Amino acid sequence: MPATPLYHGVCYYPELWPAGDLERDIAEMQRLGINLVRMGEFAWSVIEPNEGEISLEYFKGVLDRLHAAGIAVVWCTPTPTPPIWLTHGHPERCFTDAAGVVMSHGSRQHASFENPDVRAACHRIVEACGAELGRHPAIVGWQIDNEFKCHVAEDFNPHAIAAWHGWLAERYGSIDELNAAWGTDVWSETYQRFDQVPAPVSTPFLHHASLSTAWRMFARERVAAFMDEQAAILRRHTEQPITHNFGVGFAVNLERMSTGLDFVSFDDYPSAANWSDGVFDHDLFRAAKPNRAHWVMETSVAHNGWFGAHETSHPKGFLAAEAVVSFALGARTMCYWLWRQQRGGCEMPHSAVMSAWFKPSIGHAEVQAVESARRALEPLLANSCPAPAEVALTWSDRGRVMLDVEPLGADRERHAVDYLATLKAWHRRLCDAGLPRDVRFEGAALDGLKVLFTPAMACVDEVFLDRVEAWVRAGGTWVCGPLTGTRTAEHNVPTDAGLGARLERLAGVEMVYAWPLTGSGTKGIVDSAREIPLAGWGMALRPSSEATRVRGVLRSDSPAEGLAWWTERDWGAGRIVMLTAEPEGDVGGKWLHEFVRSCAAEAGVASWGQPSPGTLIAPQCDANGESWWIAINCDGQGGTVVVPDGLTDAITGEAVAAGTLTVGRYAWRALKR
Amino acid sequence: MPATPLYHGVCYYPELWPAGDLERDIAEMQRLGINLVRMGEFAWSVIEPNEGEISLEYFKGVLDRLHAAGIAVVWCTPTPTPPIWLTHGHPERCFTDAAGVVMSHGSRQHASFENPDVRAACHRIVEACGAELGRHPAIVGWQIDNEFKCHVAEDFNPHAIAAWHGWLAERYGSIDELNAAWGTDVWSETYQRFDQVPAPVSTPFLHHASLSTAWRMFARERVAAFMDEQAAILRRHTEQPITHNFGVGFAVNLERMSTGLDFVSFDDYPSAANWSDGVFDHDLFRAAKPNRAHWVMETSVAHNGWFGAHETSHPKGFLAAEAVVSFALGARTMCYWLWRQQRGGCEMPHSAVMSAWFKPSIGHAEVQAVESARRALEPLLANSCPAPAEVALTWSDRGRVMLDVEPLGADRERHAVDYLATLKAWHRRLCDAGLPRDVRFEGAALDGLKVLFTPAMACVDEVFLDRVEAWVRAGGTWVCGPLTGTRTAEHNVPTDAGLGARLERLAGVEMVYAWPLTGSGTKGIVDSAREIPLAGWGMALRPSSEATRVRGVLRSDSPAEGLAWWTERDWGAGRIVMLTAEPEGDVGGKWLHEFVRSCAAEAGVASWGQPSPGTLIAPQCDANGESWWIAINCDGQGGTVVVPDGLTDAITGEAVAAGTLTVGRYAWRALKR
Amino acid sequence: MPATPLYHGVCYYPELWPAGDLERDIAEMQRLGINLVRMGEFAWSVIEPNEGEISLEYFKGVLDRLHAAGIAVVWCTPTPTPPIWLTHGHPERCFTDAAGVVMSHGSRQHASFENPDVRAACHRIVEACGAELGRHPAIVGWQIDNEFKCHVAEDFNPHAIAAWHGWLAERYGSIDELNAAWGTDVWSETYQRFDQVPAPVSTPFLHHASLSTAWRMFARERVAAFMDEQAAILRRHTEQPITHNFGVGFAVNLERMSTGLDFVSFDDYPSAANWSDGVFDHDLFRAAKPNRAHWVMETSVAHNGWFGAHETSHPKGFLAAEAVVSFALGARTMCYWLWRQQRGGCEMPHSAVMSAWFKPSIGHAEVQAVESARRALEPLLANSCPAPAEVALTWSDRGRVMLDVEPLGADRERHAVDYLATLKAWHRRLCDAGLPRDVRFEGAALDGLKVLFTPAMACVDEVFLDRVEAWVRAGGTWVCGPLTGTRTAEHNVPTDAGLGARLERLAGVEMVYAWPLTGSGTKGIVDSAREIPLAGWGMALRPSSEATRVRGVLRSDSPAEGLAWWTERDWGAGRIVMLTAEPEGDVGGKWLHEFVRSCAAEAGVASWGQPSPGTLIAPQCDANGESWWIAINCDGQGGTVVVPDGLTDAITGEAVAAGTLTVGRYAWRALKR
Repeated sequence: MPATPLYHGVCYYPELWPAGDLERDIAEMQRLGINLVRMGEFAWSVIEPNEGEISLEYFKGVLDRLHAAGIAVVWCTPTPTPPIWLTHGHPERCFTDAAGVVMSHGSRQHASFENPDVRAACHRIVEACGAELGRHPAIVGWQIDNEFKCHVAEDFNPHAIAAWHGWLAERYGSIDELNAAWGTDVWSETYQRFDQVPAPVSTPFLHHASLSTAWRMFARERVAAFMDEQAAILRRHTEQPITHNFGVGFAVNLERMSTGLDFVSFDDYPSAANWSDGVFDHDLFRAAKPNRAHWVMETSVAHNGWFGAHETSHPKGFLAAEAVVSFALGARTMCYWLWRQQRGGCEMPHSAVMSAWFKPSIGHAEVQAVESARRALEPLLANSCPAPAEVALTWSDRGRVMLDVEPLGADRERHAVDYLATLKAWHRRLCDAGLPRDVRFEGAALDGLKVLFTPAMACVDEVFLDRVEAWVRAGGTWVCGPLTGTRTAEHNVPTDAGLGARLERLAGVEMVYAWPLTGSGTKGIVDSAREIPLAGWGMALRPSSEATRVRGVLRSDSPAEGLAWWTERDWGAGRIVMLTAEPEGDVGGKWLHEFVRSCAAEAGVASWGQPSPGTLIAPQCDANGESWWIAINCDGQGGTVVVPDGLTDAITGEAVAAGTLTVGRYAWRALKR
Repeated sequence: MPATPLYHGVCYYPELWPAGDLERDIAEMQRLGINLVRMGEFAWSVIEPNEGEISLEYFKGVLDRLHAAGIAVVWCTPTPTPPIWLTHGHPERCFTDAAGVVMSHGSRQHASFENPDVRAACHRIVEACGAELGRHPAIVGWQIDNEFKCHVAEDFNPHAIAAWHGWLAERYGSIDELNAAWGTDVWSETYQRFDQVPAPVSTPFLHHASLSTAWRMFARERVAAFMDEQAAILRRHTEQPITHNFGVGFAVNLERMSTGLDFVSFDDYPSAANWSDGVFDHDLFRAAKPNRAHWVMETSVAHNGWFGAHETSHPKGFLAAEAVVSFALGARTMCYWLWRQQRGGCEMPHSAVMSAWFKPSIGHAEVQAVESARRALEPLLANSCPAPAEVALTWSDRGRVMLDVEPLGADRERHAVDYLATLKAWHRRLCDAGLPRDVRFEGAALDGLKVLFTPAMACVDEVFLDRVEAWVRAGGTWVCGPLTGTRTAEHNVPTDAGLGARLERLAGVEMVYAWPLTGSGTKGIVDSAREIPLAGWGMALRPSSEATRVRGVLRSDSPAEGLAWWTERDWGAGRIVMLTAEPEGDVGGKWLHEFVRSCAAEAGVASWGQPSPGTLIAPQCDANGESWWIAINCDGQGGTVVVPDGLTDAITGEAVAAGTLTVGRYAWRALKR
Repeated sequence: MPATPLYHGVCYYPELWPAGDLERDIAEMQRLGINLVRMGEFAWSVIEPNEGEISLEYFKGVLDRLHAAGIAVVWCTPTPTPPIWLTHGHPERCFTDAAGVVMSHGSRQHASFENPDVRAACHRIVEACGAELGRHPAIVGWQIDNEFKCHVAEDFNPHAIAAWHGWLAERYGSIDELNAAWGTDVWSETYQRFDQVPAPVSTPFLHHASLSTAWRMFARERVAAFMDEQAAILRRHTEQPITHNFGVGFAVNLERMSTGLDFVSFDDYPSAANWSDGVFDHDLFRAAKPNRAHWVMETSVAHNGWFGAHETSHPKGFLAAEAVVSFALGARTMCYWLWRQQRGGCEMPHSAVMSAWFKPSIGHAEVQAVESARRALEPLLANSCPAPAEVALTWSDRGRVMLDVEPLGADRERHAVDYLATLKAWHRRLCDAGLPRDVRFEGAALDGLKVLFTPAMACVDEVFLDRVEAWVRAGGTWVCGPLTGTRTAEHNVPTDAGLGARLERLAGVEMVYAWPLTGSGTKGIVDSAREIPLAGWGMALRPSSEATRVRGVLRSDSPAEGLAWWTERDWGAGRIVMLTAEPEGDVGGKWLHEFVRSCAAEAGVASWGQPSPGTLIAPQCDANGESWWIAINCDGQGGTVVVPDGLTDAITGEAVAAGTLTVGRYAWRALKR
């Protein structure tokens, strides 16, 4: 990881304010230590006020001034907000939802990039940005578009549907192949030609799983392709790295899209109450481009807000803790949305560094605290990066789509199993266990890991299994489940074995039953007599190998009495652990905590510092391979870590006494040997 | 009732699996005692893969094999799932909802049978099934379509609206007649021609009651006519009886449709917690064709499920109890949906006898328990049938529609009065009182009854009153209300008297006020001083005859102080009881329990066995007119019945001691004299 | 105020009943003392059954009979319910909602008065009513249409959108002016021509605030213009005053529409539990036309009801208390909807004086009690009117629209700040403090007031400030906030100062921060140490004048520690009080109660009678300028007032002893010196 500076940035819209405000803005930025601005993403109508009349002169002037002031710039392509002349009177150029509602100008993401006219206009404005600004010395990076699919998901524009038919033809070759792969005979759904396959529009009941999953994967591929086209245009004009600002909740394929970027960034609006959401995002996006630091491209100084909703405003101290967590977990940029409160539009309630009337806003003092922390951390992090973790969670974009199509655990009260929420819950368990964590995308190498948790990934395909099997043989511990392995890549039920023959063989189990446990009062038994309440969509296993150890069975009142919901078997130097039900309630949560810790402990995972809940330790690794640690109190309650002898406070240089070290409310400590 | 076998069946989709699986399936069915399969209802695309290319050869082969294996077949017309070639590119052939949304291929019930092309294609495929399979020896019955209107209700296809105009013209003769009958002047709604009368599409506020009710009755008539057309085609080719698998919650007219069938069947998915829902369904559908046993055409072996929802899985023992209840209440078939778990589609989470990977599923052991019970019961039931009950509930399809249009008890918190829920609540009271029960459709004879409860039937018409009056005179006790009699057949308020002059004369009351009691703290007084909290839409009565006995009055703080909410008067040898408010809460529930019991006791209804709550007694009547009893524990808690001297266990042949007999958890006993 | 009679009226639909019922109706009205009927508003199809065939002969006959019987008439224009011939086959003549749904015949308000054909037909029927009935001696007033916008709000009919473009062009002159005023560059929304500006139809996210507010103000102006056109037609034919029956919840501009009317009336359906809603309505509509008494044009005798919802029925005694409150607060008419229960349509569950079968209904006895009260009050009120109050609330129609567009206090749990609910909450505080109250519309003079509360009015414009400033200088106390002053007239954030420079200068404060307090645990400190929990969207103030007194500050754990949320400063002979946060919970409510009382006390507001909560005092002023009082128990619990020496009961003429006077359950006393 190169020794980049730590950026402290703001999203900036000089085009919305009088020209004379620029100097005042820059002066205030300098006072605050702001050394980066992101700009341009909504400026299309300023750059091209009438079709074909493109000028970037105004912005070149702004960039010149920023560069002179020592402020770096990320320039964005303005494709999320096409001007009125592109879509007015052209409903065929607009995004269309599943109900057939055609979106109108007046907000953003209303244009359909599937429409050739829209696409050409996007290419033209991107080309102009590249050609005019590609070599500007202020620019240190490029952002494509803005938060793809933050407001909309799959596009039902007729051009999208035509592309869908093409995509299916390419993927399946013949319609017979598609019918066979999906199993379309089920409700006489069988197709005769690709152009007959509908997008999942209105039907009296649910669409077929295979179609629903394919449609979502197709739509995600289309966004990625559109992004790649923009990147290709830009790369003809610039040497600077290209990124996109993801949001973890948006309808895109993170792993696929990351391949087209030089580095990833994301927008992060954690609240104080859900501080670990931000930790999850860092752990996730750090994994997206293993060799490049990630950026926080947007966060709020105090609260996120728009008409009709806002976050609870941050308590004092939270913002600096968020910044330290970000830097400690590998981010190299902390950038606020936004510099100056909007005076119009629909986001006026959103917090900003400066108010619309250009006075310090509610978060201004917090920004100064961030800057102090950044200055303290910059030298420490110059040649360091987060130490690779020994424990990781699998992230599967396809798994997420499948669970979206088929929320397996849903019961009549609609307790749907949400993939993101499930991953976050497992991630939080790792945090609470005091374990440094990484995320591994489904397609990523597993080198260096000791334990991999793979929950809620419906399809475990051959490619993934190849990698896991080799890694387990070499010593890894794979925790598979709950819900994992129950579907094929075409979103069918495996017919060779409940979890597929290969996974069952590997795990040394036969999956006997799959059925819903929620509400049934099902109890698992561990340690002979300890009862664990189980919920979710469960599987009952029977050992199929002598090497399989049954660790948890179902109580005698279950129809699956005596079968297993928790097994393990050693394989080569490693181990495969199957967990096929969701422990619930306080008792279940306590057991899960122990389970996570024991999986790590038995795999020899190094732990460090025994942080109290709500306090995080982020291990670092410097250029010499030396470890050091940053401890941050994240929950605002203050906490402790247990430190060995021989440590020094990396900021003050003073020795730190061995034993329990207090970390104050939202405070942090950098500890070196 | 003929001595048919007791069928133990499965819904079977051999067309979805490799041809080679057939023999394995049959062998396993035989092992389990499966002697019936239902098939064909979703197979249209297999039978007619391209328009006009019809072949049933594949299925003839399957039927031959099943017949050879001793397994009987119900063949279904495949009209719920037309192939893609029928509707692709033809939105005018598709079902259209009230918002104008046109349904698409991809699920089922998307085609509009109002469209002549669709109708012709349906007739053609039905004709082909009849002609090819009509005399096949395996076939013991025919099912038309599948769960009519399970996903959709009224169709707003333009062809449906044209039929609506024709139906109105036929019903009313002239538009003046319609205007007068409905009272369309109310908001200047008056029509000049039939073709102006809208289907109830979007308006700023509610449509007129008469139109809303007429539209629903029309739509139900159209489904029935479509079904009758299919039956007429089949009858040209087969001697076997024709049925349809109803669901109690679907938007059809049960009484009207039953007239077109040879026997009725229904799909029943009771959960353990709501076991009495299944009892209600049996009591209801047993009444639909009094001279033919009904069938359970679908039930789940463990849980119903689809993407996004599933039932709580059955506890051990529930399925066999459900089967015994079914047989004991008159069903001659217990048939599972489905044999083998779907490998694709959207119902993969639904339980099945065999898993998709062809292993016994979670319900497999339960199916074996059902088979044991079936074998034990078959000889006992060969020449028996359920004994006619002396107490019944009225079922009115029109009453249901009217309450759907005008949920009379609804308050600002939307506690709508739902017809089905109201009927089930009254039915449960009869169960809890230990009373054997029947249902009488609105048009059915009342012979043999001692007490008839008629709640929530807004319109009591002359035909019904003629029958009730004669039956009361001959000794029946009619309990009328709550909510009964408040509207005319055209869904207006009666203007001769609040409940219509004839009903008031018969009951010896004047209905003085009708108004909502919910939330008003209204109390009724019975037995001089006992206070009963009242809710719902109430009526206050004044006796209009000396023979009228006021049993319950309204407390002095009511605006209707001193008027009655419970009266009775003798009429001929019988009695008319008016109940015009809904007792609520624990106190109200206790009173209702007593009320039901005393109505029965005063009418001389025979009770037997004093079953504890959750345990059911199903009295049987054998070919010699001898009574015997089946007692079943339905709630899984175990229970008791009190038996007289001289009984024998019909299974073991052992004497049963008089006194309290224990019935174990989900256990049953057959008791004969 | 002229000495008009007190009307006791009913809404009457003789056209829905047999001709022979008329005499019976009139006789019963006379028995009950009914001296007014309102009619005609839904009778278009009777008057003009076929296009152009207009006859009012039937209604002339009815009017003759009513006049002969001494019953006055309010005639309504029947424009809310056009006949079928106007809209059948003409979707372009129908109201269209934001989703593009075109309304159909079958209810009311389905036609679009923006369509020229519809408008012409409306004008023609209004012209006919005026020409035929304009001089009829029975008619004492005219009502235009009925409850404008009770079911629908803004119309998206293409004609409406064309009018929108014209309205924008007239308002802004040039598109550049509009772009600048709104700040449309924010998301490249910039327009090139007026016809490009969309109505706020479907977009992926929210529309721009300025557009959203302008659209609503435009739509309200269009209703007013349509009403004014009808009034102009009628005024050519009649001398009688013209009104419209408003509902406080409907989407109209009350202040703008009132300017076109001779007097205002409103429909009021208070429930016993929310009795103060009715008080609010009287205080509001009394202010709409300061020189003319207002009318209650509709209220229910027992409960409001339609299919799917109804109110809780009134307890005994409530209706007469409602009537006395109405008369005491300035209404001169109490008119029921409706005389006789509907026999058809969708409002059959609504209470009426007579049932559909023409018997006294549940409210009949209550109507008699109202008539007794009316007769007792009429001589007392003949030359009196409500005494002007010294305390008032500001009502701003634009403020309401802005809060609708931007519910500023909304949090993630959607606790939106609703303007009407906010005003009602402040009004209730004034009631609970025993203060007689008025409302002042935003544009009204402030003469005679001592205290004005102006909460939730986002834009405080120059015109309003001119008036307030002069009035404060002359001695008034202005309580500004919470939420007041935070937006410009174009719905932008002020950029000269957080509350605009002029308001800040006037109040002697600088608004430092604006941010959401809800959920943050923010505490305000008053009286050195007393803690008040604060919520809502708050502002933190810094005094900018030595004259500014800080009364409440933010606790030290707030990011705005030490800044003010409650200030006051004297200005001329008056005072400006800023309140910039919403005290919440019991503690906050108690503090607000004290706050309201102390604002009034310090301003020297006269209070009288110290009524207990739930009992209201309505001070009256007779022709000689003498004060007298009506005390009414509104909550049905009974209450007390404290009376001085020397009072007489104005009904009995007996002396009233000084001290605590009991007012029974729903009872009232008229007290004179």
